Amino acid sequence: MAKNSSKFATLGQQEADTADLESLVGYNLKRAYIIVEAHFREAVGKDGMSARVFSALSLTVSYPNITQIALARVMGIERSGLVAIVDELEAYGYLQRAPVPGDRRIQALVPTEEGLAAYNEALGLVRDKEERLLSDLTGVERQTLFALLKKIRRMEED
Amino acid sequence: MAKNSSKFATLGQQEADTADLESLVGYNLKRAYIIVEAHFREAVGKDGMSARVFSALSLTVSYPNITQIALARVMGIERSGLVAIVDELEAYGYLQRAPVPGDRRIQALVPTEEGLAAYNEALGLVRDKEERLLSDLTGVERQTLFALLKKIRRMEED
Repeated sequence: MAKNSSKFATLGQQEADTADLESLVGYNLKRAYIIVEAHFREAVGKDGMSARVFSALSLTVSYPNITQIALARVMGIERSGLVAIVDELEAYGYLQRAPVPGDRRIQALVPTEEGLAAYNEALGLVRDKEERLLSDLTGVERQTLFALLKKIRRMEED
Repeated sequence: MAKNSSKFATLGQQEADTADLESLVGYNLKRAYIIVEAHFREAVGKDGMSARVFSALSLTVSYPNITQIALARVMGIERSGLVAIVDELEAYGYLQRAPVPGDRRIQALVPTEEGLAAYNEALGLVRDKEERLLSDLTGVERQTLFALLKKIRRMEED
């Protein structure tokens, strides 16, 4: 396991590939995500939404009137973590809360016109950026990557 | 894009799969990582190292005498972000700093005996956990997943 690398060697990609870490799926997922997330930030600009905020807005667009409980579940995060995200979207003026008929304790989330416009613009920029980033992957490779990542998610649900 | 889901519908996995987000590689990577990282935490226990700290320790084991600059580069993070990680590993007693001959301004990182033991124990637990998590993937599927994730990383280097 401890590799006999020469002292103070400069590490090239080839050397780094032989480390223990490279055999762990968690490390490989994280490293790929770091890159895709940096591209996301480039796409939306430095004053743009974070990936988490964008994800939450996206789900209120896809599922208008979604409750906070359902949104947290779909995103796979704790409800406590969602509160700050929803507050941020409200502060942007992208989201409003609507009453849920028959249950005054909970509120549904609905994107505003401004939220819809901001979302569509960001989605276009992010899609273009991902398209360029993944341009070296064939269509089959992309489908395979998505299918394998979804398989990992499904294992959690079993 | 805005899906005509019925008001206040309960979202099942099938419905969620049709959302815009599911077509973005960033979202799919993040969701898979959330699951693998939760398994990592289960494997090392609640007082165990975080994934970042474990990664840094792992690289000092694989490349003893690595400098902080090289470590930050191999991990793909900012050097400022590494400082807290190295401090934490020193506080655990897992890491020590050694002088670099010929350059008094920089220091090399070397795992202690205790650090090596803690690392080997954690690595075994994490490997077992990943093995169980990925048990539904065939050997070929795992190799393919790793190859595609590495391909995304290599695009960044171009």
